[in-house]
Amino acid sequence: MFSDSLGAGAQRVAAHFDAMTADMADLPVIHAMRYAVVGGKGLRGWLVLEGARLHDVSEDRALWPACAIEAIHAYSLVHDDLPCMDDDDLRRGQPTVHRKWDEATAVLAGDALQALGFELVSDPRCHPSAEVRADLTLSLARASGARGMVLGQALDMAAETAGTPLTLEQITTLQAGKTGALITWSALAGTRLAQADLAPLTAYADRLGLAFQIADDILDVEGDAKTVGKAVGKDKGRGKATFVSLLGLDAAKARADQLVTEACDALAPYGSRADTLREAARFVISRRN
Amino acid sequence: MFSDSLGAGAQRVAAHFDAMTADMADLPVIHAMRYAVVGGKGLRGWLVLEGARLHDVSEDRALWPACAIEAIHAYSLVHDDLPCMDDDDLRRGQPTVHRKWDEATAVLAGDALQALGFELVSDPRCHPSAEVRADLTLSLARASGARGMVLGQALDMAAETAGTPLTLEQITTLQAGKTGALITWSALAGTRLAQADLAPLTAYADRLGLAFQIADDILDVEGDAKTVGKAVGKDKGRGKATFVSLLGLDAAKARADQLVTEACDALAPYGSRADTLREAARFVISRRN
Repeated sequence: MFSDSLGAGAQRVAAHFDAMTADMADLPVIHAMRYAVVGGKGLRGWLVLEGARLHDVSEDRALWPACAIEAIHAYSLVHDDLPCMDDDDLRRGQPTVHRKWDEATAVLAGDALQALGFELVSDPRCHPSAEVRADLTLSLARASGARGMVLGQALDMAAETAGTPLTLEQITTLQAGKTGALITWSALAGTRLAQADLAPLTAYADRLGLAFQIADDILDVEGDAKTVGKAVGKDKGRGKATFVSLLGLDAAKARADQLVTEACDALAPYGSRADTLREAARFVISRRN
Repeated sequence: MFSDSLGAGAQRVAAHFDAMTADMADLPVIHAMRYAVVGGKGLRGWLVLEGARLHDVSEDRALWPACAIEAIHAYSLVHDDLPCMDDDDLRRGQPTVHRKWDEATAVLAGDALQALGFELVSDPRCHPSAEVRADLTLSLARASGARGMVLGQALDMAAETAGTPLTLEQITTLQAGKTGALITWSALAGTRLAQADLAPLTAYADRLGLAFQIADDILDVEGDAKTVGKAVGKDKGRGKATFVSLLGLDAAKARADQLVTEACDALAPYGSRADTLREAARFVISRRN
């Protein structure tokens, strides 16, 4: 079952993270790094493991990019939660890093997590081919930087400052960066390890990433804070345009459904071996947190 | 002359930075990235160019790691200056990024600069050999992350929280991370591009980095804010242990002199070709800002 597979994957990624950071100093920043990575759903790391499995790449290798993307994702959440950004006290039902420690620790832990992400994918133990490692590194830098995730965040910030709600097209671009870029990288890492054709999983992941964000917007309206593990109703409170505010709740749900169907169809070349990825896509729009 | 060479190098690195970011969105975060990189002394980028020249590596290649290290260095300054960190209003005589824009822009611009650093050294245009690119990336991740620069910053923060002044040995370890790791990486990047012996420039750079920090501590005591371009006298005001507080001003100057002599001696295998690097080492301890 998908949820079991997800949980087991997250545990193996967490164990790899612990092994990779075991030699680091006994300091608050290092503890905060672990706190930020461990305890998440681990969807991105799981996508890496699953994409690798689909290409018969051993999990010993896949754990490196899986751990890398969880480190990068965790850094983005730690910085996003800062008072000067989203100012969140809770994440996954637990105090955010700057609440549990302090802001300086949160800034540094995030910075170190980003560096760790790049360290993991350029380590020779990740893959014997330097071509593969350089490819993973370059694509990760592009996906997470000012042409990918940070671009999405910067567009989000600019929209908030401007006070003009975004159009559907603008929100789609914004989210393709903010959430989509890392999800797509995750789904493709296994293909990169195998040096195989990127097209099928690119089509899958682009749709999955967008469906994921629409589901997030729906949760912000329909979820309750306790189950979601963070504050809800924030978008409406801020008068922020979302997929729900632009499409309406029913049309947003229909759009997410359609994207999931398309994502599953894109996996046709892999046949039934990709059933767990199909289940993951359906999970993404039915989740409660 | 060294200062001309430094200025000319900084201009070429800035031009490369502009070319590499020309396609990025017209957003405050992107403008802040440029602002943070351009206008610095560019010592680290210059060390890359000079180390490459010493190994007959073309500057077209050297500009990639030179620009990368300036991006990484700039990200660390932008985050260091934040109110929750050192809370500085001035840097190089200009408003810091969070003062000119805001804190959220500073956090994001720093994050994007870090990603850009890794993007630049893993770009195939940096070097045709993926081995070289993966080597540059891995060493940069280690030098900048929780085993290098961030470790130094975390030790610094822990010392401030503990309120117990550090010993000379502890300060040396702290500074080897905080300032030394990036300086050493800069001096070695050209050797990595040439796949040559790392030993001579490692010995040079380790001493240079330490001398650089001792000189910084001396400037904090002897400099005036206008020339230095940032607040001075801060260390003493905080009761913070520095090389000057531990060794005394004269002994600190003597130690810096000795380190520079050792750094210059380490360049013996390169003969007179390394004279500009020797001049750079002497400049580091005689600078006024």
